[in-house]
Amino acid sequence: MVRKRTEEICSTLEIEDYVVQPLADVSPPKWHLGHTTWFFETFVLSPNLPDYILFNDSFPYVFNSYYESFGARVIRTNRGNLSRPTVQEIYRYRRHVDEAMEHLLSQQISDELDMLTILGLNHEEQHQELLATDIKYILGHNPLFPTYKEISNAIIPNSPSNEFARINEGLYYIGNNRDKGFCFDNELERHAVFLPAFKIAKELITNAQYLEFIEDGAYRNHEYWHAEGLDWVKNNNINAPLYWYWVDRQWRNYSASGLQPLKLNDPVAHVSFYEASAFAAWKKMRLPTEFEWEAANSQFDWGSRWEWTGSAYLPYSGYSRAAGPIGEYNGKFMVNQMVLRGASIVTPPGHSRSSYRNFFHPHLRWQYTGIRLAQNIDPALSIE
Amino acid sequence: MVRKRTEEICSTLEIEDYVVQPLADVSPPKWHLGHTTWFFETFVLSPNLPDYILFNDSFPYVFNSYYESFGARVIRTNRGNLSRPTVQEIYRYRRHVDEAMEHLLSQQISDELDMLTILGLNHEEQHQELLATDIKYILGHNPLFPTYKEISNAIIPNSPSNEFARINEGLYYIGNNRDKGFCFDNELERHAVFLPAFKIAKELITNAQYLEFIEDGAYRNHEYWHAEGLDWVKNNNINAPLYWYWVDRQWRNYSASGLQPLKLNDPVAHVSFYEASAFAAWKKMRLPTEFEWEAANSQFDWGSRWEWTGSAYLPYSGYSRAAGPIGEYNGKFMVNQMVLRGASIVTPPGHSRSSYRNFFHPHLRWQYTGIRLAQNIDPALSIE
Amino acid sequence: MVRKRTEEICSTLEIEDYVVQPLADVSPPKWHLGHTTWFFETFVLSPNLPDYILFNDSFPYVFNSYYESFGARVIRTNRGNLSRPTVQEIYRYRRHVDEAMEHLLSQQISDELDMLTILGLNHEEQHQELLATDIKYILGHNPLFPTYKEISNAIIPNSPSNEFARINEGLYYIGNNRDKGFCFDNELERHAVFLPAFKIAKELITNAQYLEFIEDGAYRNHEYWHAEGLDWVKNNNINAPLYWYWVDRQWRNYSASGLQPLKLNDPVAHVSFYEASAFAAWKKMRLPTEFEWEAANSQFDWGSRWEWTGSAYLPYSGYSRAAGPIGEYNGKFMVNQMVLRGASIVTPPGHSRSSYRNFFHPHLRWQYTGIRLAQNIDPALSIE
Amino acid sequence: MVRKRTEEICSTLEIEDYVVQPLADVSPPKWHLGHTTWFFETFVLSPNLPDYILFNDSFPYVFNSYYESFGARVIRTNRGNLSRPTVQEIYRYRRHVDEAMEHLLSQQISDELDMLTILGLNHEEQHQELLATDIKYILGHNPLFPTYKEISNAIIPNSPSNEFARINEGLYYIGNNRDKGFCFDNELERHAVFLPAFKIAKELITNAQYLEFIEDGAYRNHEYWHAEGLDWVKNNNINAPLYWYWVDRQWRNYSASGLQPLKLNDPVAHVSFYEASAFAAWKKMRLPTEFEWEAANSQFDWGSRWEWTGSAYLPYSGYSRAAGPIGEYNGKFMVNQMVLRGASIVTPPGHSRSSYRNFFHPHLRWQYTGIRLAQNIDPALSIE
Repeated sequence: MVRKRTEEICSTLEIEDYVVQPLADVSPPKWHLGHTTWFFETFVLSPNLPDYILFNDSFPYVFNSYYESFGARVIRTNRGNLSRPTVQEIYRYRRHVDEAMEHLLSQQISDELDMLTILGLNHEEQHQELLATDIKYILGHNPLFPTYKEISNAIIPNSPSNEFARINEGLYYIGNNRDKGFCFDNELERHAVFLPAFKIAKELITNAQYLEFIEDGAYRNHEYWHAEGLDWVKNNNINAPLYWYWVDRQWRNYSASGLQPLKLNDPVAHVSFYEASAFAAWKKMRLPTEFEWEAANSQFDWGSRWEWTGSAYLPYSGYSRAAGPIGEYNGKFMVNQMVLRGASIVTPPGHSRSSYRNFFHPHLRWQYTGIRLAQNIDPALSIE
Repeated sequence: MVRKRTEEICSTLEIEDYVVQPLADVSPPKWHLGHTTWFFETFVLSPNLPDYILFNDSFPYVFNSYYESFGARVIRTNRGNLSRPTVQEIYRYRRHVDEAMEHLLSQQISDELDMLTILGLNHEEQHQELLATDIKYILGHNPLFPTYKEISNAIIPNSPSNEFARINEGLYYIGNNRDKGFCFDNELERHAVFLPAFKIAKELITNAQYLEFIEDGAYRNHEYWHAEGLDWVKNNNINAPLYWYWVDRQWRNYSASGLQPLKLNDPVAHVSFYEASAFAAWKKMRLPTEFEWEAANSQFDWGSRWEWTGSAYLPYSGYSRAAGPIGEYNGKFMVNQMVLRGASIVTPPGHSRSSYRNFFHPHLRWQYTGIRLAQNIDPALSIE
Repeated sequence: MVRKRTEEICSTLEIEDYVVQPLADVSPPKWHLGHTTWFFETFVLSPNLPDYILFNDSFPYVFNSYYESFGARVIRTNRGNLSRPTVQEIYRYRRHVDEAMEHLLSQQISDELDMLTILGLNHEEQHQELLATDIKYILGHNPLFPTYKEISNAIIPNSPSNEFARINEGLYYIGNNRDKGFCFDNELERHAVFLPAFKIAKELITNAQYLEFIEDGAYRNHEYWHAEGLDWVKNNNINAPLYWYWVDRQWRNYSASGLQPLKLNDPVAHVSFYEASAFAAWKKMRLPTEFEWEAANSQFDWGSRWEWTGSAYLPYSGYSRAAGPIGEYNGKFMVNQMVLRGASIVTPPGHSRSSYRNFFHPHLRWQYTGIRLAQNIDPALSIE
Repeated sequence: MVRKRTEEICSTLEIEDYVVQPLADVSPPKWHLGHTTWFFETFVLSPNLPDYILFNDSFPYVFNSYYESFGARVIRTNRGNLSRPTVQEIYRYRRHVDEAMEHLLSQQISDELDMLTILGLNHEEQHQELLATDIKYILGHNPLFPTYKEISNAIIPNSPSNEFARINEGLYYIGNNRDKGFCFDNELERHAVFLPAFKIAKELITNAQYLEFIEDGAYRNHEYWHAEGLDWVKNNNINAPLYWYWVDRQWRNYSASGLQPLKLNDPVAHVSFYEASAFAAWKKMRLPTEFEWEAANSQFDWGSRWEWTGSAYLPYSGYSRAAGPIGEYNGKFMVNQMVLRGASIVTPPGHSRSSYRNFFHPHLRWQYTGIRLAQNIDPALSIE
């Protein structure tokens, strides 16, 4: 099921779309297809299926992403330079590994193997999201602006309520409580966090609201920006979210169905942490911390945009890096990145949860990243 | 007094030493002398002393550091390209401003002006520390390894006790409580943080202990490193702390008195966050968070090294950026940096306190940065 | 015929091979297919065929190479980021333009139009050579080392004669004399050059001879190198020609038929000007100037390797840049490049001639570049 | 005498001016003082004066410029990072070496030693020119625009004659004929060059003439530029010669006496090869080749500007690189640079001659570089 969904995401692509890497962070779709397969081959099949034969001796080198434990690999920025293996060959690779997995899973397997298989599927779901956003980047930066396909209009249009939920001061338990199935190691250990009272917006910021920020000249007003954010704005001539194009004196937005007039009531997407943070400062508010977000998440709908938080991606109290290659999964990225919470319209169904921690460098915005605001409640005014 | 101390730090320099900028982060000493003076001229004198005349119309351009509010400035990496104004002229500038300040302070002044003056003195103290470390960088990277001067051996030699203080789980109040005089805005607001039980080392890691880490090949073992830390190690051929030189088959250390044999019992200094974090991982421990550090700081001696914490530099709950240029002092740097706590042997006397938050990018190490370890106390083993 | 040959060069490619750009200088094959077509559309059809309709309004933007006269274009390093137009669509573009050209040429056409058509075909032949070498780069840098196809063994194996032709001092006429059909503007004007007596090798340097240079440690001996050449060697860890791989303790060479043992008697290929020049210095000789080469070319066989000369690419006496976009063809590159003479095994038949001037930056070597030596004849020893 | 002149050039400097390196190509004045001294120490004294003692063991490392033969050295871009040795110490170094040289020269010395001493003095004269232009760069890029000193108005004001000298077709002997004293190896061997008839301007281009080029928008018209020249213009926002500042709606020019109104009749200075070449194209003329310049030089006054030629810096016929370190003097730079002929107002008296070849990369312009035009004489029109 999960494996099939990856291929469905690619069903409208041309062969050429599978190959290119227009940004270091954007991997070629064919690389995602191979890498998610390599994960099963390397972590599950090779060590556990006695007579398993590698599909191709060079693929471990080609499809390793960042696991130092497995030695040499194609450097990330070179993924788009590889025309081979072909797309067809990679699909054959997927068949080969899927059949071996079916064979393995038809037997009695250990708990550890079961856990690794589930990790492999969750890993593939993570890549499904990246695959969708990488495809959007590839097509949305092509001068021909090709259509991908109509995405269901599942986005709940933001009502203009501007309501906030009020959360009381108190001790909250944060992190996955392990009783609801799989979670990543970075969601552990569950631990207590003390939170002062705060308010958090019930809706995401819309394109219309973000447009006011632009029209107020906020991209050029240093007061709202981190110093590194302002450098990023200046060095890259940033003046709007990614995929906004100023054409014929109006803003257009590249979406799966091509270049379209901006939908003002949609939640804004594809903003960097710097932009989200500057927007909040312009509103005289702030982004919620990831702890606030998790404590309050039952008070609002979420799931259409990954939401930037004001929290740096750091280990939870009690976190420990697993032994061996699996230990490289999360821990080694816990510096210089910011946490996002929620999920987005391209997150696979069932893949997210309230304890889920996504993370990116603060300048990145090719994911469906959005903005939810929060605000302190001044104790003195708490009877408001 | 404070102003005089800045000049004393430079008393053994040659004119040439005042001029160079061997690293973007290392400013020429003469720039520090001018910039700390510009701060008083710009924030205190010009707006408040009616007949104040600028010493030189170009100096605001030359000595502004990063205040966007004051417009154009010499870009940071160009500071070392300016031979003028001369050192002598900058000392004259200091006299000019000091006299005007004396004149101003001889009058009745507002609380705000008093606050600004105190901020100016604390700002200058911060630059005294940078001045000392920048001078060390300038001399310690010169192939002649000139002597600066003997620094008093005030470093308390680490006893090899390896003792840990145990801190109980509970709610701790973190941040400056405003009742002990000046603090920076980033130490506010004081707020409650819940901490699980933990242990924290009573002593800093010594050169001898760090040497074991090196000799174990830990610089080449990816298991201990952040991914970005490992890139930093590889790209810069890092294999020891800054100022360690492998000469004639032994480690030597550049210090104020020149190139000297490594003192094994001294606390290690001049390591990056990446190195501190990798060292902790190698020891199967971790760095304390800044909250743990502040909660526990009365249990150990500190003050010889700035100590890397596991906390990213973020605003405290309740922090708000001041209006106007003063608002640029701290808030705009709250991304991509890690917090250091404590103080170092070149911190001006009286300048630090337990709530003080220093911060640097994780790869920087020209400050006297050191390592203190912490560890969780597993609740199940808490009767150990 | 010429148009068809371009497509034949691609006949063994997979779709994916058409798309990638592993080096800024290496364009995706599909870009070559489109650009050579755009040339006819832009220079011949649009201005001359009254009812000609552009195949696609965006293609002029996508397929312009460097003509400032035609405004905006995809920057060169982005060519490999474009998955669209697809290969199939570009072949349709070729059909569209070919049919319009046939229509145009079936009419009475002006001399100028005839000249432009011939220029278009020569332009396409130049791109055929680049196409062949770009494909080699794409496949030869893929970790799977795919086979392209067997290239006929038309390379005349170098006999180990080491003979030199002796050329007398005198006035030689250099440049195209316009009586043998088409030539590029950079081959004009034909002009007199005085040459002292010299010797020039009858054969190219072989792989075996180049191997001696390597084994003598010459890549690490500064005496043979230009200063910028030595920097290039050090910064890129160069220790052999391009496509030489040291595998299992022997040198292998990537060729159209895959990774093969090095053929010792083949002329060395894929060396930079820096390497060619250092090799000559190591032999205590020098490279011929382009004038010497042209004056002597009837004395030896040439055509398997482009041969680096000691001449910078500069305008000939009497050269003048044509008016309009055609003037951008050659003249604007006449700085910082070195001249190559001859032709290579992938030069289209009939495309070269003794007055032909090829040119590349001195560090480039993805063309089939080789080495021919020359030497002064000391007048005093001329009776040798 | 020569040695003293170097110090006189520095006589108006502040200590700070000796230290900085605002551009990789601009060395700190104190480095020039030390390097020219190191040359005598290394090439003359150490090998020839039996009991000579190095002034300081580290100086060979500090003051080697680019001689690979002498091993490790401070990398060029780091020269401005070295505050030590101090200026005073370098002057002591100069005394030490001068005295040893006097001692050596008071004895009977070999021809080779005599030759080396003369080379050392010529080397120092070359550095005197660089010293003067580096000082200009240091002061002329300082926001305070300090005065250096009044340079004598020895520039012969260009009369507006616009006259050209006509030179007949023929064989000309180019290169130093060794009968007039010292020359550099790159001026050899003297050899015959055939030149078609040409015209060459009797005067240099003036600021007024260059201003027309600017005002015609020529910096933005691609037709006049090399492709790499246009990139240079765009990437560096070039719109005028170096040291031209647009202040208060008029052009000002930084000169030794500070920022001054542009002198319209002075020959233009501080243009790059790209600019010189574009200017010539705009005038529908060209730059002379270095051979034309040398053949014609008795027909015009020269010496106030180094004049860009259209010739790449390549070895003359018969040139051979000397054995040993002296062989590194010139030959290894013979790629990617263009030849300048003449001399400039800061060339030491007696240092230049008609066979002298100066050379720089085409984008550099911190020397006193100017423009002289040339033109073919169309044989058909030769009776004009």
